[in-house]
Amino acid sequence: MRILLVGAGGVGSAVVPIAARRKFFEHVVVADSKQDRAAQAVAKAGGDPRFSSIQLDASNRAEVAAALREHRCDVLFNAVDPRFTMSLFEAALDAGAHYLDMAMSLSRPHPAEPYRKPGVKLGDEQFALDGEWRAKGRLALVGMGVEPGLADIFARYAADHLFSRIDEVGIRDGSNLVVEGYEFAPTFSIWTTIEECLNPPVVWEDGDWHTTEPFSEPEIFDFPEGIGPVECVNVEHEEVLLVPRWIDARRVTFKYGLGQEFIGVLKTLRKLGLDTAEKVRVGAAEIAPRDLVAARLPDPATLGSRMRGKTCAGTWVKGVGVDGAPREVYLYHVVDNEWSMAEYGSQAVVWQTAIHPVVALELVASGVWSGSGVLGPEAFDAVPFLTMLEEYGSPWGMREHSLMRAA
Amino acid sequence: MRILLVGAGGVGSAVVPIAARRKFFEHVVVADSKQDRAAQAVAKAGGDPRFSSIQLDASNRAEVAAALREHRCDVLFNAVDPRFTMSLFEAALDAGAHYLDMAMSLSRPHPAEPYRKPGVKLGDEQFALDGEWRAKGRLALVGMGVEPGLADIFARYAADHLFSRIDEVGIRDGSNLVVEGYEFAPTFSIWTTIEECLNPPVVWEDGDWHTTEPFSEPEIFDFPEGIGPVECVNVEHEEVLLVPRWIDARRVTFKYGLGQEFIGVLKTLRKLGLDTAEKVRVGAAEIAPRDLVAARLPDPATLGSRMRGKTCAGTWVKGVGVDGAPREVYLYHVVDNEWSMAEYGSQAVVWQTAIHPVVALELVASGVWSGSGVLGPEAFDAVPFLTMLEEYGSPWGMREHSLMRAA
Repeated sequence: MRILLVGAGGVGSAVVPIAARRKFFEHVVVADSKQDRAAQAVAKAGGDPRFSSIQLDASNRAEVAAALREHRCDVLFNAVDPRFTMSLFEAALDAGAHYLDMAMSLSRPHPAEPYRKPGVKLGDEQFALDGEWRAKGRLALVGMGVEPGLADIFARYAADHLFSRIDEVGIRDGSNLVVEGYEFAPTFSIWTTIEECLNPPVVWEDGDWHTTEPFSEPEIFDFPEGIGPVECVNVEHEEVLLVPRWIDARRVTFKYGLGQEFIGVLKTLRKLGLDTAEKVRVGAAEIAPRDLVAARLPDPATLGSRMRGKTCAGTWVKGVGVDGAPREVYLYHVVDNEWSMAEYGSQAVVWQTAIHPVVALELVASGVWSGSGVLGPEAFDAVPFLTMLEEYGSPWGMREHSLMRAA
Repeated sequence: MRILLVGAGGVGSAVVPIAARRKFFEHVVVADSKQDRAAQAVAKAGGDPRFSSIQLDASNRAEVAAALREHRCDVLFNAVDPRFTMSLFEAALDAGAHYLDMAMSLSRPHPAEPYRKPGVKLGDEQFALDGEWRAKGRLALVGMGVEPGLADIFARYAADHLFSRIDEVGIRDGSNLVVEGYEFAPTFSIWTTIEECLNPPVVWEDGDWHTTEPFSEPEIFDFPEGIGPVECVNVEHEEVLLVPRWIDARRVTFKYGLGQEFIGVLKTLRKLGLDTAEKVRVGAAEIAPRDLVAARLPDPATLGSRMRGKTCAGTWVKGVGVDGAPREVYLYHVVDNEWSMAEYGSQAVVWQTAIHPVVALELVASGVWSGSGVLGPEAFDAVPFLTMLEEYGSPWGMREHSLMRAA
């Protein structure tokens, strides 16, 4: 397998040292709009000659397709901002390559009733091209990071091995990460978080999708391995669009454990009109308020060494077990920032996103996972993935309901 | 009396229709950096020939002194931003005029221990020139709006007529004003509110001033006339600097009834570094974050017709009554926005600030109040003021402690 990894930002750079420990591929070309950033990412392979870097404009479909052909890559691994998803997705299709991403094509709110009905949903533009991918016999594996990604695989595992009927698949993401030396420093991009959190959250229920007001259905979820209770709210996320396509569940939700403080900050930014990405005029200056907000906070990619704590991604499944009795489990994956910094030089949130697509590519390279068309992670057998994840040194866990009650 | 009213903003404009109903002065020259704004304020006198307008730069001491002489004004009434207090104060001294303001010269935090000790206090620069005012036999009546102003007069009244010993003078300001049609719209300048609330609050206690952290000592105060309970916090304000100079009180505080929502907004702005008035660079633009915040919210001066509710200013006094028994009273002044809009075309907060200096000027013009040097409102007899306030059609009230408990 020859891989064109597009994007040498936080996650793209974290992919390199993870992949460098594995033998399944022949070469990785790391591409970025900035050549030096691509080269810095390659440097994390510690001299492994299977990595090289190029400069590439991810928004230029023809240029990307040409790069795939020139470097004889059979898979495009998309690790850039979702604004570029469609140009990369179509470039891979043009060049006859397989494709993998961690965030799907963007949504647009319903014009009349944004907080009741979905408009264009996450991934809609990609699924519209499913026939073309099938016709070419190529695989587009979409939403294959941690969330979406591992979270969807947990849902598949629960459906195949733990439940005879699923009432709810509830993705729950939370952490106890703190950044030392700052009064307030998010551990992920506030620009992206505003985008995610202010889009109308989407929920699958009784055979259809609907949307809600931002920050809806707040709940306190008790995260495992010492993280503890964190306030979570509905957020628009790919799992809600992916899981119902392959798994029979009455309800699918995604709740983000932002915590009360962060939710308060986001609500205040919205209330004051400081969330908008549109430019506004102030005296002689023109500025997007959201850009100012981001500029006033430290860059989370630079905070790994000041960060402490653990991050958890997981899938809470409720329904009826294979024995016919009510069952409730939380399948989860926890990364300790201290460990990921020491072992891979990557902060926990970024590292946790980067490992799962590497595992998935190894399963595709070995033929354990195969298929054509536009497929989510839950379209594949979960067991080989979860087994290989442990082999990578990153175990997952499961908490039964009875334990949750006792916690 | 001939008055040079400097500043035709919200309060300056509201002064005109109040003064126009009175006979005590010969002429008011309304001066503003913008000639048309001064002319618009004069138009509120309904054709009264005792009002005229000029263009004037309030920061230019020589120009202001020349205007006082040219228009033969014997008093300068300062109704501009406190950044211009010193140039106007000194211009009046130069020209041999009396002087009145509603906000005193600005403070500067203690360089080493800003949240324990005061640095340069509000009014310090003005009191430093007390000797010169006395020598010239001219009066500088400082802090003569509603708060400071009426609140200080209430303290004087309590000391002279209600108490034999005062333990605490606690100014408490709150409202139930809401602005229809906006999710969030402060009824006063957020720029100024940030300035006031993020300066270290000052407290008088046991013979000296000290400062605290912003938003300290939160309490719920139950305001009268249907306003009800509002969360109040310590804020830097002139009364705390003025009252102890003339009234014997163990403790003097000022708490602003911002309410939980507004306090939350201010804390968030501070946490995100969006409170600063210093310019920061974002991409190609340079901008002061506080200017952006202000620009995103509606201008409170334009909201009077959409506003509903009442605003209350008052002084809570605790101690021992003249009969030797413990006593606790709240002396207050409430303005209903509906009334002030209908009667004067001014929103309640602005109108409540504008009326008291007009009453004070009438007392000075008639010789009931007289003196020389830099004096606060509590340096004068409160009774004629409170009597005249009722004559102006704007009554005040008093709530006894026992009633407060029952409320």
